[in-house]
Amino acid sequence: MDEFMAAAIEEARQGYAEGGIPIGSVIVCDGKIIGRGHNRRVQQGSATLHGEMDALENAGRHPAEVYRRSVIYTTLSPCSMCSGAILLYGIPKVIVGENHTFMGEEEHLRSRGVAVEVLQDDTCIELMRRFIAERPELWNEDIGEPA
Amino acid sequence: MDEFMAAAIEEARQGYAEGGIPIGSVIVCDGKIIGRGHNRRVQQGSATLHGEMDALENAGRHPAEVYRRSVIYTTLSPCSMCSGAILLYGIPKVIVGENHTFMGEEEHLRSRGVAVEVLQDDTCIELMRRFIAERPELWNEDIGEPA
Repeated sequence: MDEFMAAAIEEARQGYAEGGIPIGSVIVCDGKIIGRGHNRRVQQGSATLHGEMDALENAGRHPAEVYRRSVIYTTLSPCSMCSGAILLYGIPKVIVGENHTFMGEEEHLRSRGVAVEVLQDDTCIELMRRFIAERPELWNEDIGEPA
Repeated sequence: MDEFMAAAIEEARQGYAEGGIPIGSVIVCDGKIIGRGHNRRVQQGSATLHGEMDALENAGRHPAEVYRRSVIYTTLSPCSMCSGAILLYGIPKVIVGENHTFMGEEEHLRSRGVAVEVLQDDTCIELMRRFIAERPELWNEDIGEPA
């Protein structure tokens, strides 16, 4: 297991342990994690802090040059909001844990020149399968789908 | 002046008075403002709280049904991140103060069925023109452009 995806999964597990949505993310620049986070919908009553957004927020403010040589790891295929954030900052590469349980905007990202690699990692899939089975209403809220 | 765009401009002015980036937004559901906010990059060291994101965050958690009958007002054409958030939640209509100083993802929004109306409001344009002239490096940081 790649150490950075392992860190993203650790974030996802922490979110699950907190009663939250188990999606984690890390941002890596020059071989080091500069931001990490997980979905905070439950924990902070947040409508915007998906895993990727939380990692971006925790990374803090950076000039464009930092993002443009970074890679973002996320346990789940990025939704339109998180994909939009990736495009805003020009992050050139996304490593996705899985897209079996949710297919995000991977094609849109690729159409704008972002490299998207999908690992279809069993741990990521199992975490989401369990969560969606346990809390379908919470999952629907997080992706803007009617209950 | 539409009362909701006036509220978004009030948010933008408040952001400017705080030394921040003067972009404001409100979300309106059933004729009432359910969330309002402004860019918090400077004030909170935030990489994700653009005006629209701050309004979404301040609106709190809602089921999909609320967003799907809402309108979002923003003083500036929404960037890819904010446009992605609008798509995530299925907000069907966006009222934009202006797109002279920055053209966001209006065509992408329209291609996904979102109604986008642009007012080209002089107050919005003047606020952004002044800010960009005064703080070009901060503006570039906010839109992920090299300094």
